Amino acid sequence: MSVQDKTMLESFDLSVRIRSESYDAVIDDLRAKLSELQRKVLKQERGVLIVIEGRRGSGISSLSNKLYQALDPRGTRVVATGEPSDIEQAHTFLWRFWNKLPPSGAISVFDRSWYSRAIVEKYHEKKKDSVPHELLSSFEHFETQLVTDGYLIIKFFLEISENEQEKRLDKKKCDIFSPLGKNGTKEKGKQSRFKYHEITALVEKMFLRTNTASSPWHIIAADQLKYAEVEMFQTIISSLESWLEKQKIPEKEYLEHKKEEEAQTILLESTALTSLTSIDPYVPMDKSTYNNELKEWQKKLEDLQVEVYTRGIRIFVVFEGWDAAGKGGCILRLTSPLNPRAYVVEPIGAPNNVESRYHYLWRFYTRFPEMGHITVFDRSWYGRVLVERVEGFCREDEWMRAYHEINQMESMLHDHNDLMVKFWLHIDQDEQLRRFTARQEDPQKQWKITDEDWRNREKWGQYLKAVDDMIHKTSTPHAPWTIVPANNKYYARVFTIQVLCGAIESQLQSSKGKGKGK
Amino acid sequence: MSVQDKTMLESFDLSVRIRSESYDAVIDDLRAKLSELQRKVLKQERGVLIVIEGRRGSGISSLSNKLYQALDPRGTRVVATGEPSDIEQAHTFLWRFWNKLPPSGAISVFDRSWYSRAIVEKYHEKKKDSVPHELLSSFEHFETQLVTDGYLIIKFFLEISENEQEKRLDKKKCDIFSPLGKNGTKEKGKQSRFKYHEITALVEKMFLRTNTASSPWHIIAADQLKYAEVEMFQTIISSLESWLEKQKIPEKEYLEHKKEEEAQTILLESTALTSLTSIDPYVPMDKSTYNNELKEWQKKLEDLQVEVYTRGIRIFVVFEGWDAAGKGGCILRLTSPLNPRAYVVEPIGAPNNVESRYHYLWRFYTRFPEMGHITVFDRSWYGRVLVERVEGFCREDEWMRAYHEINQMESMLHDHNDLMVKFWLHIDQDEQLRRFTARQEDPQKQWKITDEDWRNREKWGQYLKAVDDMIHKTSTPHAPWTIVPANNKYYARVFTIQVLCGAIESQLQSSKGKGKGK
Repeated sequence: MSVQDKTMLESFDLSVRIRSESYDAVIDDLRAKLSELQRKVLKQERGVLIVIEGRRGSGISSLSNKLYQALDPRGTRVVATGEPSDIEQAHTFLWRFWNKLPPSGAISVFDRSWYSRAIVEKYHEKKKDSVPHELLSSFEHFETQLVTDGYLIIKFFLEISENEQEKRLDKKKCDIFSPLGKNGTKEKGKQSRFKYHEITALVEKMFLRTNTASSPWHIIAADQLKYAEVEMFQTIISSLESWLEKQKIPEKEYLEHKKEEEAQTILLESTALTSLTSIDPYVPMDKSTYNNELKEWQKKLEDLQVEVYTRGIRIFVVFEGWDAAGKGGCILRLTSPLNPRAYVVEPIGAPNNVESRYHYLWRFYTRFPEMGHITVFDRSWYGRVLVERVEGFCREDEWMRAYHEINQMESMLHDHNDLMVKFWLHIDQDEQLRRFTARQEDPQKQWKITDEDWRNREKWGQYLKAVDDMIHKTSTPHAPWTIVPANNKYYARVFTIQVLCGAIESQLQSSKGKGKGK
Repeated sequence: MSVQDKTMLESFDLSVRIRSESYDAVIDDLRAKLSELQRKVLKQERGVLIVIEGRRGSGISSLSNKLYQALDPRGTRVVATGEPSDIEQAHTFLWRFWNKLPPSGAISVFDRSWYSRAIVEKYHEKKKDSVPHELLSSFEHFETQLVTDGYLIIKFFLEISENEQEKRLDKKKCDIFSPLGKNGTKEKGKQSRFKYHEITALVEKMFLRTNTASSPWHIIAADQLKYAEVEMFQTIISSLESWLEKQKIPEKEYLEHKKEEEAQTILLESTALTSLTSIDPYVPMDKSTYNNELKEWQKKLEDLQVEVYTRGIRIFVVFEGWDAAGKGGCILRLTSPLNPRAYVVEPIGAPNNVESRYHYLWRFYTRFPEMGHITVFDRSWYGRVLVERVEGFCREDEWMRAYHEINQMESMLHDHNDLMVKFWLHIDQDEQLRRFTARQEDPQKQWKITDEDWRNREKWGQYLKAVDDMIHKTSTPHAPWTIVPANNKYYARVFTIQVLCGAIESQLQSSKGKGKGK
């Protein structure tokens, strides 16, 4: 039964039972049906998340195993959600779950999930009176982003009566594999720190926030496991069937569909208030000034990195810009004073075969900096609203959605005390032409310039509009874009380091104390 | 200069210097040469490991950064080797380094490596009088396996004089990014727990063991960093050049080469003492006995898993066998009593595009079980000496080498107190035919049988020989093969669980106390 039908756990009917004969009669068909459906799932472009939550002793792991056994392990993974590793601990709360997304065609069974962890880590450990609102909305965003990207999420809550729970918790063993972590596993049976009614209240609050149409909760009466198993399998089967229905877009049709949108994209009106063209890409700076300024600011950055490292602050530096705008050169100057033990440059190209099997943001989550580290992205997730938009590598609704999704991600990082610095390196068409030609004439640099660069250049207008939209839709107070006049390389190199230093300093100010030292 | 020329650090000349003008004159050419070479490296089937070791304050990170800056980040990664994460800590010592191998065409710069960690973790922390011999030989095996597989390993040791070190360590900052970990970073300057001469002795011992022809040590005088940079770049350039020379086998030639070997493979004489054919694949068991025995042994296994989990023992269960031998069925029965939070089934197929960019064992290292977990491999690394050998997916020298490489890996796991249980499910050709036909007639199971199965069947003889060789070459005292008579599925299912239970029990006996509890 879905939560829509009945919201309150209190009034939920737990007396339901199934007779053994009836169970034996149906279960094999359900298993057969499931494995038949899974073979269809394996061909899909996205994966399935089955979340199994419930009270302690409600049989989560035995039911997970029933499910695991009914499915083909080639396409199935049981994710036992326990204590975060020290690395996971240091990231945003949802990071570890982004890293555990099923690839295309796969099914991940989450034996407990972000919901239990929210209660264990944020409610109990932090002694909050309830799970923080911002966390619950980050769950909403997480699930919505996945579902709109084509994933299927099926959420179960296994409900048992207080008496049944006491009976089960008396069996010590039930706690040994408990993913509730140290707090959970230490106490035995009845001395659970999670009082039955306390949980009821907590869970109902979570339901109210996270029982969305796209990923609703299914409450399952689990006093009798056989009944729960049958109902769970039936729910999964029907969810898979309707999901597979939706996925049916023949490849050919889909591609034409894409072309149309590409056309529309080009026509699309700009929402830009002002345009990039209104910015003068040339700011003069002579070589001697450059040398002095560069040395000075590099020294400054070198010192700041020590602070950043000891304070454990994560820094994201995003470089986007026109081809030949000098991203590489800026990055070299910006990284040369840094200690390589605490920074990395991530050049972003087209996703590889593995990466394209996930949500487009997945491959960036896997590249997030560690505590106290600086990651410089040479191109970034903004490719979604730039090259992928202009070249039609994704559908219009996909890149349209991306602005909002990216803002959600960046504000989550901001809440986590991470620093985001985004540069758009701006040159004009004449300057780009000069540089392209120069590259072609220099045997050392010829490899740098390809036909693709020339093709992109012809689409300058379309890119201009994409850049305008991007800057206006994703310049937020906590993650603003800095447009870098880059016709003069000297100026661009010094300027980017200056801006980074400034951003770091104010971050160090604002986060005094907050930073978890190393 | 390479260690061959001069082994003893004591007598090593540190007075060498380069004049600034000469430095400026050569460094740009060296950089250009490097990036030119890297573009060739990017096209190679394997990657390059550059290991930079040295005394504290010898300039490892500044030189790593010089190198990082000279290379294209698209193909470069600096691996700062610090304290292991809690997950890495729980694995074999080299596991974390297997996980950090560069993919094909990439260069990984190891800012400190397994050598420093051996000293910090095994020498200092464990208060050993020297780095354990078995550890050093595991390094030898590790490097040899990689080099023979086509990787290039360049190892540097930066040597500085005692006075120079004291000067540098006085600057507090030098220690902030120190990867020597808590012990390393806590103490300042001169109070280093690593006394200069103590290190000399340690390092020289390591050199003697690990200065192999395939991956020699290069000692670099680093009292003057500019000199060190130039010498390091020159060494890398010459190493890359000779490595790239070796890689030059035109694709076409290579493939013919492969075909020949395939032919040879088929002719190859068996080294088998006895043959699989001498084993009767049929052992009777009726259904009622089966039901009782199965229930009993599953209960036993269920209880043992609790022990295994609390004791933190890692268990590898390998299932190999003829097509349709019933691996899947055995695995289902074996896993159904287990708690899914502590076991996983890993079905192994052909490597995907990412996996094929590494040493063939890499994808298994990434699938090793966590502490207290059981991983069931449905097919395994033995594919190298079975399907890859018979189908000619790898060269003869590659699968010939594999027996030894696999034995090395398994004995390393044994030393680490992990348990390895390997099954070969044996059926005869008639039984296989019966099952193939049955599958084709059952609409529920048709998907299970493909033309490939029939093709493999025709190569029964070749596979038989491959299996014989495998069993005789890789049945070791600590990782024996169990041949499972599998014509009768009932017997096979009960028998495999029995054997696993027995193995676990004796492991629990032998490792009393040793196991790190959870």
